[in-house]
Amino acid sequence: MRIAILGGTGSLGKGLAVRLAEVGYEVIVGSRDKEKAIRVAEEYSKKYDVRINGASNAEASTGCDMVIVTIPWRYAFDTVLSLKEELKGKIVVSPIVPMERTESGFVYVELPEGSAAEKLARILPESRVISAYHNIPARRFSDPDAEFEWDVAVCGDDEDAKRTVMNVTNEIKGLRALDAGGLRNSKTVESLTPLLINIAIRNGMKDLGVRFV
Amino acid sequence: MRIAILGGTGSLGKGLAVRLAEVGYEVIVGSRDKEKAIRVAEEYSKKYDVRINGASNAEASTGCDMVIVTIPWRYAFDTVLSLKEELKGKIVVSPIVPMERTESGFVYVELPEGSAAEKLARILPESRVISAYHNIPARRFSDPDAEFEWDVAVCGDDEDAKRTVMNVTNEIKGLRALDAGGLRNSKTVESLTPLLINIAIRNGMKDLGVRFV
Repeated sequence: MRIAILGGTGSLGKGLAVRLAEVGYEVIVGSRDKEKAIRVAEEYSKKYDVRINGASNAEASTGCDMVIVTIPWRYAFDTVLSLKEELKGKIVVSPIVPMERTESGFVYVELPEGSAAEKLARILPESRVISAYHNIPARRFSDPDAEFEWDVAVCGDDEDAKRTVMNVTNEIKGLRALDAGGLRNSKTVESLTPLLINIAIRNGMKDLGVRFV
Repeated sequence: MRIAILGGTGSLGKGLAVRLAEVGYEVIVGSRDKEKAIRVAEEYSKKYDVRINGASNAEASTGCDMVIVTIPWRYAFDTVLSLKEELKGKIVVSPIVPMERTESGFVYVELPEGSAAEKLARILPESRVISAYHNIPARRFSDPDAEFEWDVAVCGDDEDAKRTVMNVTNEIKGLRALDAGGLRNSKTVESLTPLLINIAIRNGMKDLGVRFV
């Protein structure tokens, strides 16, 4: 299976790209800036002894079976809208968390669609939108030598696509995928991320993920 | 310190009552039904070799320093409103989670006040409302022999009261209190509970709590 990681030059994208390539997936890192994508893909490939390709977001979307949208939330929706044709019929994974920093900490930004994943599904009615990877602390995850035991709550209304994303996730060492129900539940999973960041900041902890035990 | 547990005859109430009594707190189990409270308190005391008293919710509120409201959310607000005078100046802990069962699983019920804890604070402007214990699976917690390692996210705008609740919580073996910010953050903590239940049901798991790691 070929997996494209849009906005794959960021921390979450790096962690997913390197780890998915390590377990045998064909990975394409996509970026607005094609040259940057190619350069970063080469860098990851050399440094971690894997084979990752780079491409524009559009090319990456065209040439893959699954797309993970690791683009900051303020830009993600417009980018995905511009790739509507390329993403038809494909599994599109949303780790998107709408949040902002306030004086009292990070807060989840409520969207009229209910959640970022539901907004994405509205924009891409012919794609198979699944929501996952929100609660992974990107910085720690981007270090391929980091060890962790984190759960990944996966939401989606397309059961086959959800199962595929869960299987892919479970191949990454230290991640355990859990079925968290339909896309309607994505809001709760998304809004857990600002909570994790606030808890880390307030309790002198760092890069917190979550375990359901 | 004397701690009253309103609605303390339920599972979460039982777990808190027995565990807090075991580590030396004076515990009063409150109930609408005073006779039931006394009977249950005697039962807990005998069975687990602790000393717990029973009383009406009003008596329990009057005679304590801290109150934990373990009443189902549909009744909790009315009960607390009727105890407004008794609860003045006291620490009132809300583990209240407004949720309902739907065809697609449990969903969090949005309240106009933002969260159950904020609603409680609105009802009790002269009490020190703190939110905690939402994500503890009550059934497993009610078995005093159960072993677990769970985190308790604690929210509140009164820093001293929050610290007191965190200290009390940390005395219970297997619980770790974490400062999760102001009451405004309580919604995220509360809404994690239906997610935990949905994940448990969908993945063949049971009685899930949460760890931030």
